[in-house]
Amino acid sequence: MKITRNVKKILDNYESDCPGTKANLARILMHGRLGGSGKVVILPVDQGFEHGPARSFAPNPDAYDPHYHYQLAIDAGLNAYAAPLGPLEAGADTFAGAIPTILKLNSANSLSTNKDQAVTASVGDALRIGCSAIGFTIYPGSEDQYEMMEEIRELSEEAKSVGLAVVVWSYPRGGKLDKAGETALDVCAYAAHMAALLGAHIIKVKPPTEHLELDAAKKVYEAQKIDISTAAARYRHVVQACFNGRRIVVFSGGEAKDEEGIFNEVRAIRDGGGNGSIIGRNTFQRPREQALKMLDRIIRIYKGEN
Amino acid sequence: MKITRNVKKILDNYESDCPGTKANLARILMHGRLGGSGKVVILPVDQGFEHGPARSFAPNPDAYDPHYHYQLAIDAGLNAYAAPLGPLEAGADTFAGAIPTILKLNSANSLSTNKDQAVTASVGDALRIGCSAIGFTIYPGSEDQYEMMEEIRELSEEAKSVGLAVVVWSYPRGGKLDKAGETALDVCAYAAHMAALLGAHIIKVKPPTEHLELDAAKKVYEAQKIDISTAAARYRHVVQACFNGRRIVVFSGGEAKDEEGIFNEVRAIRDGGGNGSIIGRNTFQRPREQALKMLDRIIRIYKGEN
Amino acid sequence: MKITRNVKKILDNYESDCPGTKANLARILMHGRLGGSGKVVILPVDQGFEHGPARSFAPNPDAYDPHYHYQLAIDAGLNAYAAPLGPLEAGADTFAGAIPTILKLNSANSLSTNKDQAVTASVGDALRIGCSAIGFTIYPGSEDQYEMMEEIRELSEEAKSVGLAVVVWSYPRGGKLDKAGETALDVCAYAAHMAALLGAHIIKVKPPTEHLELDAAKKVYEAQKIDISTAAARYRHVVQACFNGRRIVVFSGGEAKDEEGIFNEVRAIRDGGGNGSIIGRNTFQRPREQALKMLDRIIRIYKGEN
Amino acid sequence: MKITRNVKKILDNYESDCPGTKANLARILMHGRLGGSGKVVILPVDQGFEHGPARSFAPNPDAYDPHYHYQLAIDAGLNAYAAPLGPLEAGADTFAGAIPTILKLNSANSLSTNKDQAVTASVGDALRIGCSAIGFTIYPGSEDQYEMMEEIRELSEEAKSVGLAVVVWSYPRGGKLDKAGETALDVCAYAAHMAALLGAHIIKVKPPTEHLELDAAKKVYEAQKIDISTAAARYRHVVQACFNGRRIVVFSGGEAKDEEGIFNEVRAIRDGGGNGSIIGRNTFQRPREQALKMLDRIIRIYKGEN
Amino acid sequence: MKITRNVKKILDNYESDCPGTKANLARILMHGRLGGSGKVVILPVDQGFEHGPARSFAPNPDAYDPHYHYQLAIDAGLNAYAAPLGPLEAGADTFAGAIPTILKLNSANSLSTNKDQAVTASVGDALRIGCSAIGFTIYPGSEDQYEMMEEIRELSEEAKSVGLAVVVWSYPRGGKLDKAGETALDVCAYAAHMAALLGAHIIKVKPPTEHLELDAAKKVYEAQKIDISTAAARYRHVVQACFNGRRIVVFSGGEAKDEEGIFNEVRAIRDGGGNGSIIGRNTFQRPREQALKMLDRIIRIYKGEN
Repeated sequence: MKITRNVKKILDNYESDCPGTKANLARILMHGRLGGSGKVVILPVDQGFEHGPARSFAPNPDAYDPHYHYQLAIDAGLNAYAAPLGPLEAGADTFAGAIPTILKLNSANSLSTNKDQAVTASVGDALRIGCSAIGFTIYPGSEDQYEMMEEIRELSEEAKSVGLAVVVWSYPRGGKLDKAGETALDVCAYAAHMAALLGAHIIKVKPPTEHLELDAAKKVYEAQKIDISTAAARYRHVVQACFNGRRIVVFSGGEAKDEEGIFNEVRAIRDGGGNGSIIGRNTFQRPREQALKMLDRIIRIYKGEN
Repeated sequence: MKITRNVKKILDNYESDCPGTKANLARILMHGRLGGSGKVVILPVDQGFEHGPARSFAPNPDAYDPHYHYQLAIDAGLNAYAAPLGPLEAGADTFAGAIPTILKLNSANSLSTNKDQAVTASVGDALRIGCSAIGFTIYPGSEDQYEMMEEIRELSEEAKSVGLAVVVWSYPRGGKLDKAGETALDVCAYAAHMAALLGAHIIKVKPPTEHLELDAAKKVYEAQKIDISTAAARYRHVVQACFNGRRIVVFSGGEAKDEEGIFNEVRAIRDGGGNGSIIGRNTFQRPREQALKMLDRIIRIYKGEN
Repeated sequence: MKITRNVKKILDNYESDCPGTKANLARILMHGRLGGSGKVVILPVDQGFEHGPARSFAPNPDAYDPHYHYQLAIDAGLNAYAAPLGPLEAGADTFAGAIPTILKLNSANSLSTNKDQAVTASVGDALRIGCSAIGFTIYPGSEDQYEMMEEIRELSEEAKSVGLAVVVWSYPRGGKLDKAGETALDVCAYAAHMAALLGAHIIKVKPPTEHLELDAAKKVYEAQKIDISTAAARYRHVVQACFNGRRIVVFSGGEAKDEEGIFNEVRAIRDGGGNGSIIGRNTFQRPREQALKMLDRIIRIYKGEN
Repeated sequence: MKITRNVKKILDNYESDCPGTKANLARILMHGRLGGSGKVVILPVDQGFEHGPARSFAPNPDAYDPHYHYQLAIDAGLNAYAAPLGPLEAGADTFAGAIPTILKLNSANSLSTNKDQAVTASVGDALRIGCSAIGFTIYPGSEDQYEMMEEIRELSEEAKSVGLAVVVWSYPRGGKLDKAGETALDVCAYAAHMAALLGAHIIKVKPPTEHLELDAAKKVYEAQKIDISTAAARYRHVVQACFNGRRIVVFSGGEAKDEEGIFNEVRAIRDGGGNGSIIGRNTFQRPREQALKMLDRIIRIYKGEN
Repeated sequence: MKITRNVKKILDNYESDCPGTKANLARILMHGRLGGSGKVVILPVDQGFEHGPARSFAPNPDAYDPHYHYQLAIDAGLNAYAAPLGPLEAGADTFAGAIPTILKLNSANSLSTNKDQAVTASVGDALRIGCSAIGFTIYPGSEDQYEMMEEIRELSEEAKSVGLAVVVWSYPRGGKLDKAGETALDVCAYAAHMAALLGAHIIKVKPPTEHLELDAAKKVYEAQKIDISTAAARYRHVVQACFNGRRIVVFSGGEAKDEEGIFNEVRAIRDGGGNGSIIGRNTFQRPREQALKMLDRIIRIYKGEN
C-alpha cells in the first residue's frame, strides 16, 4: 500500500509518536473510499449507551445487531468504525482485519445524574480485539472535567506506548454552559484546542454555531474581526484551533436531520479544511439503502466531486 | 459431551472470547435438564445479603444451610447456582464438580444509605473455588453507577483473561428513577443493553412492565409503534436490546408470588425468545418438595411441554 | 495432639480452606481448658484504641502492660488472645508459642468523626509475629460499610492464601441505625450473616436484644413466629444465621457488668448453641484474681459443669 | 451431575487441594463412558513432538489433523484428551466444553542430544484454552531430572493456585538406567512414587516388567517376598507406591501392539487396582473404526463387562 | 476491505486466537498483489546478522540502506517485510502503515561458537514500531534447542495476548544432524510440525530434499509408501505436517540460485499446497530491476498465471 502524499503530510505532523501509532493512523487514513485523500468518514455507534436501544435502533431495527454496523461501515467504504466494548467484541472475529476500529473507552447514559462518563474498556481490550485507536469523551466545563482529563491522560499515555492512536470526543457540557453555549463557536474551538493540548491524534467536536458564549472571548472575536459569518469560516477557525491543522479534526453530525442539511455541512467542513465527519444516527437510523446512498454522496463531496 | 447445535450457535456469538470462557459458558448451557436446549434456569441465592437471613430463610429454615441450595439446584436439574463467597465456600468441596457455580462478586444490604454495592469477592476466589463465571450487579441510574461500571470493567477483563464467563445483574435504581421506573420497559431494555455494551456474556434483568419511564424514549416507542402490549412482546423487545439475541438474557422472578403467575411469566419469556430464568426467593422460600415441583414445571415450560 | 471429634466436625465445615488455615483454626479450638470441646473463650484487648488508655486500664493499672494480657489469657486457660499490632509485638517473643494470637488489623478511636476504622496492621505482620488469625471489624449500616467490606475482602483473600484464619467483628453502627438498632436481634443476626457471606471463619457479634429494628424484618419474625422470647432462643437464631452453625460464632461481653449478668449470658450462649465468648473489659478491668475466678466460672459453664 | 460415591471417595484423597482443582478432577472422572466409575481412559497425542509427524500419523493420515483426535476422544467416550499447545489451540473453539483437556506443558523430540524436555506452554495457556489440567513429563534418572522436577514444582504450585489439576508423566530414563531398567518394576514403582511425592494429582507410568533393576531394591523385593509374578500383581505394587491408592495412577500403552496384548494389559491394570489407561499410538495409528472398536472393548473391560 | 473467502477460511483455523491476532494475520494475508489469495510472499532481511554486511549487501550495495528493503517489498507488492530491530526502526516512520512488518526477535551470527541465537528485540518493540507479527528462529536438534523453544514459548504467549501474530523459522541444525540432514524431508517435516506444536501461526522451513535422515522415520516412509519423488509431493508432505494445512507454512529460498531453479521451486510449493515463499538473498542481492522482475514472476506463478 503506497501511502499517499496527502496522508504522509498528515502523519508528519505527529512528530513525537512511535511508528506503531503512525501505522494505525495510516490504516485509518488509507482505508475505504476516501483512503489516501486525507479526508475521513467514521461511523460511531455509541448512541445505545447515550440514549438507550429503542431511541437508537427502533427506527431501523436491523441496527440492533452489532454486525449491521460493521457491515454498513465496510459496504459504505468508510475509514473506521467506533463503538464501545460489547458491540466490537460481538463482531471482532467475523470482521477481523476488515475495517479499522476505534474502541470507545468511556460511556455515559441518559439515567445519569452528573456530567461524567464511566470508563468501560481498556487499552488491553483494544489490543485484544485488534483496534487501531482508542476513543474517549471529555466534557470541558463539567464539574468532572478534570477527572475526565486525568483519565484520558493516563489511557492516552498507555495507548501511545503500545502503538495505538487516540481519538478524543471533546463535548463542552455542564458547569456554566447552557445549551447554546455547548456549541458556541468560541467554546467549540476551545474544546477542540484542549483535546489537542491533551495530546489527541484525532479530535471530534460538534459543528460550531455563530453564537459566542464567553464574554472575554467575544471581545477578542470582535476586536480581531474573526470571520464567523459562514459555516466554512467557522470550521476553518476550529481547524486553526487544532494546532493550525497539525491535528486531525472531524465533526459529528449531531441530531438526525434532513439530507440536504447534512450535505451542506459536509461541504462547509471540506471548504473550511476540516478532515471529515463522524456520523452515526444520521446513517444507521435510516434504512440501509438510504444510508449507503447518503454516505456515497458525503464521500463524493469530500472527494470534491459534488 | 456432544455440544448441541443450539448451544454451539449461542457460543458462536461470543466472537472475541477465549476458548476457556466458551468452555465455561458451554458448561452452564449443557448442564441440567435444560442442558443443550439453549435455555437456562439458574438458582441465585444472594438475598441473605440483600434482605438479611430471617427475611430470606425463615419461611423455609432448612435454607439457612448453604448446602441446601447446592442440593436444590442439583436435584431440580438446574443449569447453575449463583451465590456470594461465603455460601459457595461452605459447600465447594462437597459439591465440587457437581454443578456450575457463579460467584457473585459484589453485594448490597438493606442497611445501606446509598445505591451501591461492596465488592466482596475476587476473580482469584472464583478460580480457587472452581466457579464457571463471576456475577456482578450494576445499578444504572444510581449516583454510583459509573463507579460500579468501572469495577465490573476491571473484573470482567480479568475474568475473561483466565477463561471465566461474566454475568451482569443490571438493575436500574436510584437517581431520577422512581419505583415504577425501575421496571419500566424502556428502562429495563436500556439496562439490558448497557450490560451488553459493557461486555457481559449473560445478562440478568427484571421482568419489564408496560410502563414507559423516560419521555424521550416514550416518544420513540409510540412513533415506531413498538409492541409492548403483551409480556412476550416485552421480553422480545429486551432480547432485541441484547444485540438482537447475540447475548444470553435471563429474567429474575422478582418478589415471591403465586405459582400460576410465575408459570405465565416463564411462558412469556419462552415465547419472547428470552434464554431463561434466574429464580431465587420463589424457590428456596417454598418447602423443598414444592420448589422441586415448581422448578420441574418451569423446566417443562422451557422445553415447550407445557 | 488428638483432634477431638467435636473439633474435627467444626473443621469439616470449612470446605474451601487450605490445611494451613484449618491447622490455625484447630490451634485455637484445641488450646486451653476448653480445647477440644468446640467451645472457645477469647481475650480481646483493643479497648485502648477504642476508648483510650485511662478508660481501659486505669481501673486495673497492671493492664497497661501488654504482658499482663498474654499472661492472663494463658493463666486462665483461654483459647486465644486478640489485640492490635503494638501490644502483640510487645510480648510476641516472651510468649512465642504460648497461646494462639489474633492480630486485629483495623481499629477505631473515640476521636473519630466518622464510623470507620483505620487498617493498622497487615497479614505480613500476622505471619511475622506468629498469629493464628487476623481480626477485622466491619460496621454494617455505616456510610463506610462498603469500603470496610472491600478491605476485609482483600485482606481475607490474602490471609487465606497463607494459611491464616479470619475473625470478623460485625458491629452494626451508623447510617439509619439508632443505639437500640445496633443490638436489635434482626440486625445482629443480619450482621452475623453478612460476616459469614464475606467468608469469615469466626464471627463475633454483640449479644442481641429482644428489639426488632427493621420493619420489613419485623413482619417476617412475626409471621414466621420466630422465637425471640429468651436469650438462648435469640442466640440460637444468630447461630442459624451463621450458615446454620457451619461457621463459628462468638459473642462479646459488651459493657462491663456484674458477674451474674455475665454468667447468665454465657449460659444462654451455651444453651443457644453459640461457640463461645470473646470477653475483654469484663476481665482485664477486674483485679487479676477476680478475673481468673470469673473466667474459671465461665469456662466451667461452657463445659456444662455449671 | 451427581458425583458418584466412587469418584467422591477418590476426590476425598486430595486433602489439600482447593475446590477448583477438585472440580477439574471431577470433570475428568465424571466424563465419558467411564464417568463416575473411578476408572479413566485418556487419549494423549504428543507423539508428534516425540517421534515426528510421519512416524506418528502416516499410518493413519487423518490423524495429521488435530480435530481428528478431539473427535476420536469424544466419540469413543473417553475421559480426557491430552496434547501440546498447538493441537489444543487448533480445536479449542470447535470443541469448547466438549471434553476435558490436559495441556502438556513440556515436550521432547527425537533430535535431542540430552534427556530433557522443553517447557512449551504455560498455566496461563491452560486457563485461556479451557483445560482441566496441566501435564508434565519428568525423567527420573536423567542428568536433567532435578531441573525437570524444579520446573514441575513451580508450574504445579501455580496450577493448584488457579484450580487446575496436575498430571505427571514419570518416565525413568538416562543416567545409570539401561533400556530394561526404564520399565523395571522397582524403577517404575519408584518413578510413580516420586511423582506422588512431588504433589501430582494423576500419575502416568509405563507398564512395569518383571525385571528388577536396582540391587539395593532387588534385595528387599526378595526378602519381603513382594509378589511380582503376574502383571496384576505388578500393577498393584505400583498402586501401592502411589500412596497406597490415594493418588490416581494410569498406565501408558507403550509401543503399538496387537489388540489381545492390549486387552490383557487392561485387564491386569483393572485387577491390580490401577485407575486406567492413557493410550495414544495404539488408538490413533489404527483406522478410526478399529480404534473406536478397540476403545469400546477397553472401556468394557474397565467396567468389568469383559 | 472485504476479507476474501480464501483468507477467511485460513483465519478460521486459528481457533484460540484473539481478534487482534487474527486482524494482524488478515493484514499480512490481504496485503500486496497476492492479497486475498491465501498465498504470501514475504521479504526477510536478516542475513546481515547471519553472514555480515559484505556477504549480504556488497553484491548490490544499495541494499546496505534499510529503506531499500522496505521499498523493494512495497514496490514488488509483497505481503510483508521481516527484519531485526535496527533496520525496522531505521525506516519505521517513513514507511509507517505502508506494509505489514515482522520483527525478528532473535538472531545468530557467523562468529558464534554454538548453535543458538540471541534474543535481540521484544514484543514491546514490535508494538512500538507497528509490526503485525514477531518472528523467531528455533534450531531443532541443536544442544540449545530446548532453551530456544522456551524463549519462543514465553514471547509467543506475550505476543498473542497483545494481538500480534507469531512466525517461527524452524531450521534443524546441530546435534546429531549433518548438513544433508538439515534439509532431509523427514527432518524438515518434523521441524515444521514442532513449530506448529509450539503454537506458531506462520511456519517457515527450508525446501525439503529427497533425503531421509532418521532411521526410525525412514522405515515409516518406506512402509507407508509416502510419496517423496517430486518436489510438489515433498511440499505437500510438509503441509500435512502443519496440522494438515491448518497452519500457514512458507518456504525459504535457501542459497542464491538461478532464476529458473527458483521458479520451479515456487511452482512446486504452489502445487504442493504450500502457502508461499519467504525469499531474501535471491532478491536483494540482485539489482533492483531484476529483483522486481523475478518477484513479479513468482507472484504470477502463485496466482496460477505461470
